[in-house]
Amino acid sequence: MKKVFFLICSVLSCVSVMGQVDRVEPPFWWSGMKNPAVQVMLYGKEIAKYDPDVKGLDVADVHRTENLNYLFITLNIASVKAGIFEIRLKDGDDLVQTIPFELKERKSNSAHRKSYDSSDLIYLLMPDRFANGNPAIDSHPDVIENVNRKLDGGRHGGDIQGIIDHLNYIEELGVTAIWSTPLCVDNDEKYSYHTYAQSDVYKIDPRFGTNEDYKRLASELHKREMKLVFDYVTNHWGLTHWMMKDLPTYDWIHQFPGYGQTNYRTTTQMDPNTSQYDYRYCMDGWFVKSMPDLNQKNPLVLNYLTQNAIWWIEYANLDGFRVDTYSFNDKEAIAKWTKAITDEYPNFNIAGEVWMHDQAQMAYWQKDSQVGAIQGYNSNLPTVMDFTLHDAIMEVFRVEKPTWNTGIIQVYENFVNDFLYPNINNILVFAENHDTPRINELYPNFEDYQLAMTLIATVRGIPQIYYGSEIGMKGDKYRGDGDIRRDFPGGWQSDSSTAFTAEGRNETQNRYFNFSKKLFNWRKSANVIHQGQTTHYLPEDELYVYFRFMEGKAVMVILNNNKTSKELSLDRFTENLKGFQQGKDVLTDAVIKLGHKLTIRPKKSMILELEK
Amino acid sequence: MKKVFFLICSVLSCVSVMGQVDRVEPPFWWSGMKNPAVQVMLYGKEIAKYDPDVKGLDVADVHRTENLNYLFITLNIASVKAGIFEIRLKDGDDLVQTIPFELKERKSNSAHRKSYDSSDLIYLLMPDRFANGNPAIDSHPDVIENVNRKLDGGRHGGDIQGIIDHLNYIEELGVTAIWSTPLCVDNDEKYSYHTYAQSDVYKIDPRFGTNEDYKRLASELHKREMKLVFDYVTNHWGLTHWMMKDLPTYDWIHQFPGYGQTNYRTTTQMDPNTSQYDYRYCMDGWFVKSMPDLNQKNPLVLNYLTQNAIWWIEYANLDGFRVDTYSFNDKEAIAKWTKAITDEYPNFNIAGEVWMHDQAQMAYWQKDSQVGAIQGYNSNLPTVMDFTLHDAIMEVFRVEKPTWNTGIIQVYENFVNDFLYPNINNILVFAENHDTPRINELYPNFEDYQLAMTLIATVRGIPQIYYGSEIGMKGDKYRGDGDIRRDFPGGWQSDSSTAFTAEGRNETQNRYFNFSKKLFNWRKSANVIHQGQTTHYLPEDELYVYFRFMEGKAVMVILNNNKTSKELSLDRFTENLKGFQQGKDVLTDAVIKLGHKLTIRPKKSMILELEK
Repeated sequence: MKKVFFLICSVLSCVSVMGQVDRVEPPFWWSGMKNPAVQVMLYGKEIAKYDPDVKGLDVADVHRTENLNYLFITLNIASVKAGIFEIRLKDGDDLVQTIPFELKERKSNSAHRKSYDSSDLIYLLMPDRFANGNPAIDSHPDVIENVNRKLDGGRHGGDIQGIIDHLNYIEELGVTAIWSTPLCVDNDEKYSYHTYAQSDVYKIDPRFGTNEDYKRLASELHKREMKLVFDYVTNHWGLTHWMMKDLPTYDWIHQFPGYGQTNYRTTTQMDPNTSQYDYRYCMDGWFVKSMPDLNQKNPLVLNYLTQNAIWWIEYANLDGFRVDTYSFNDKEAIAKWTKAITDEYPNFNIAGEVWMHDQAQMAYWQKDSQVGAIQGYNSNLPTVMDFTLHDAIMEVFRVEKPTWNTGIIQVYENFVNDFLYPNINNILVFAENHDTPRINELYPNFEDYQLAMTLIATVRGIPQIYYGSEIGMKGDKYRGDGDIRRDFPGGWQSDSSTAFTAEGRNETQNRYFNFSKKLFNWRKSANVIHQGQTTHYLPEDELYVYFRFMEGKAVMVILNNNKTSKELSLDRFTENLKGFQQGKDVLTDAVIKLGHKLTIRPKKSMILELEK
Repeated sequence: MKKVFFLICSVLSCVSVMGQVDRVEPPFWWSGMKNPAVQVMLYGKEIAKYDPDVKGLDVADVHRTENLNYLFITLNIASVKAGIFEIRLKDGDDLVQTIPFELKERKSNSAHRKSYDSSDLIYLLMPDRFANGNPAIDSHPDVIENVNRKLDGGRHGGDIQGIIDHLNYIEELGVTAIWSTPLCVDNDEKYSYHTYAQSDVYKIDPRFGTNEDYKRLASELHKREMKLVFDYVTNHWGLTHWMMKDLPTYDWIHQFPGYGQTNYRTTTQMDPNTSQYDYRYCMDGWFVKSMPDLNQKNPLVLNYLTQNAIWWIEYANLDGFRVDTYSFNDKEAIAKWTKAITDEYPNFNIAGEVWMHDQAQMAYWQKDSQVGAIQGYNSNLPTVMDFTLHDAIMEVFRVEKPTWNTGIIQVYENFVNDFLYPNINNILVFAENHDTPRINELYPNFEDYQLAMTLIATVRGIPQIYYGSEIGMKGDKYRGDGDIRRDFPGGWQSDSSTAFTAEGRNETQNRYFNFSKKLFNWRKSANVIHQGQTTHYLPEDELYVYFRFMEGKAVMVILNNNKTSKELSLDRFTENLKGFQQGKDVLTDAVIKLGHKLTIRPKKSMILELEK
């Protein structure tokens, strides 16, 4: 572990032949980008000794670092047509090597691609745990960790082909977008399956498939008018990342010197009273020992990450990003990264993981935040995640004795601060993700699952669900992360049954699935949910009622957080019910006359499309 | 109860002789005010039939309401010299009555009086429960409820003279300002002692003394360079307020029609999703049945409250306000009220009771808040109360097993959002008040009291303490409000002992008092606490460390929230300790060399004045 802090551990073992370029990153680029420059990084033994030029292209800048094995060449590609260009490395007048560098044609309208938004429903999956479409690549000679399905924290063999094979299932559920946890190669010896400790960010992990496979996943999704969200990690790479063995600069990663671990207190990002000591450890400290923390304050690093992100968008035809540990990045640098991407793709949505527990602190990070503006900050991030709603969901359905501030009021209170967010529709709402307790473990009763899903499918924002819960999958966070990332039943040929089909699912699984399918498919075309305004009412007697409305349409949502039936008096809701005579219950298709009262069954919700 | 909703319950019983003015409010005014107008309200049987004029004064406006018993006369007093003017009521050419109205001379520099600020320490007391200086007025023929010290919720006989008699005690403690709960007459049959249900806002309750007595209290305080803070109630009056029997307008108070009670959810003030129904009930609903909710949207009401507030400042020579239930008022109207007062007295401090549990929601209400500005709101309120710190203090010292977000971290986390407040020094910090559990009941151990007081005496803001706790007084909120408002021992002649003197106090009382006195008197001249910046450090092992610093001076505060001694490594604090060799412990006077470690005793704090 200690060795990594040395600038060059062993040059001879990392690069091969003097003067030979081993890596070119990005491997290619595109003509017609808004940014007129691309910085090509060459890596090869002592290549910084040579002078580069490019036939037919203007070399705007050549940058060398203290490590002679790197050369950063900035090409001016404004108005340059697509084609293959030759980067020539010269030693005086002698040509040492020629490296082809292609500028490809962009897809038409690439810059103005649409992205995901509040009309979508996102399905978060972990590819290693979803389905094994190609057992031949469960292990791979290029990477260390082999498949071992018996280990909770081992690789189980899921892959891109497995996802593609089950897109019909995902589509049937009513999902419109997939967020897969990272797929780039993670060559850690253990726990590589989560893939957040990447060892090469230009290459899909061979145990998941190839870059082409990933591109095919996007293409298959687009055929179904579904979207692909890439999980980008700006904050750190894996300790096995190839660059860690031969850092371009000492400050490519944060060194203390020696190891420094983050304190995880990202409030230091905004706390005017923070010590520099705590601030530094939060931002620069490593998330875990296996993940060197990248120094985005170094413009070379920031540009590398920016180009890599854009490369994936353009290469795989992506529809959006989720960004890991967003608030752990250098605040100013990540704002530049985000801006560079949205400058290139104005409609591109990026949801940042800002795992905080206070709406002001979360709103701080959203683009054009007036809370951030108090400190002159604009992170440019279009979408934040509603972790405070998640906090509430984790508690609310199991409160035994509701009080002034516990019970369904906790959900209500999440929305009272909506004014702090500049864009209320760009908030990811979720009951769980791959890092949190499983909703069905926390709430073993189907009714609580229903309440949670009704909530995230009908409030403002972009709902995100987590693979497997739709068939009642459980998993205990306190038994370890592996347990909340169980294999989807039927994803492996050897599985005794499959939950991907109605026939394969048992009764319980079908109950979960059919409810979810009904709800999510309804949401697909419910514009009033995607874009409508909200009016909510103070919960009374653990009944929470809210309305979504737009252009004469209205939906009334009622959550009964009681284990008993409740009569709901409708008189309070006149301002929203005025003009409507009846409501169609989205979940049962029953048409209900709106009189003075409604009866809500124990722990049930109602979603009523109001009708005149 | 129902009767009050009728406009005029019984005119004959309320006013006396036709054409005779029974009340003039304000009873007098001052020349040389910034506001060029004063609106004089006359009350008398059917006086609205008459036309007023004033010899030597310009009558800018005469306003009549649906109730003929009121007449609102706006006088233009710009550049008018002090003197007594005659308001003449005429019936055609016949003079019906002449009412003298005096414009007094203002005290010099009245407008620019200083107010309380973070250099102060405020002592909150309830006059009925502090000391009985004049047993002759314990009961009074003008008011209903008689003294009965045996009742928890009864009147105990404390009065203004009692406060004056013990100013030396209060001063000795290190207090610089007194906030007394309201003193205007409250003629409720029961529970009148708290005096928040006032029946005449121009008159001190005769059981407390006279208007002159109150003025004398201010004067006695000023002799000691201490300050007087008036507890103003804009939101409601008592049901026994004289006007309730004969409302000037139907909408003087909020009527639903019938009684409507507030839901107490003041988040509806900012919640963009709130229903109008909930919003109305919060703002317009009555706090309790005995307190009619004033309608400040009615300009007559707002002006009445504004003039009454200014009248007391000018009359009693006040140093500041605390405003009850600030966030229950109509948001726009209370902002006007606050602005009118601070326009007249630019340095006048006003602390509003904004009892919320979220820093963004509290910061919303502070003058020039950028959080409020998100909704275009500026409440103009100089000072808010740190209820979230109070929330933390209520829990933090009794956490048995600290976790990620419980334990001393709760105090730390209160300050991470300080950036939300436009004026961080204008935040009232407190461990308790007359509405909350007593700190010594919650924490029976002296050490916890010490920790709580160390905290509020050394963090940013204006500390406020609550009478009696400085001698260890207890009281259980769950036994009723009366129990947290016990009589100060020695305040009554019949008391068996007195805690007002060292000799009278028992050992425990002296331990509490001597600690408090030492701490508070030190704070008096500690500018670095009043104005200094703060750096705080992430708590480790339940040790919370922060520094206050200004112009080369620095104070280090250490709180040990463990029941065991702890070694504190000082290496983390280099950025604040640099250049300092030793620290003088404010609480023990010991001088401590700053090496690599400090030992902090169980549940103790250290306040070190750093020295080079």
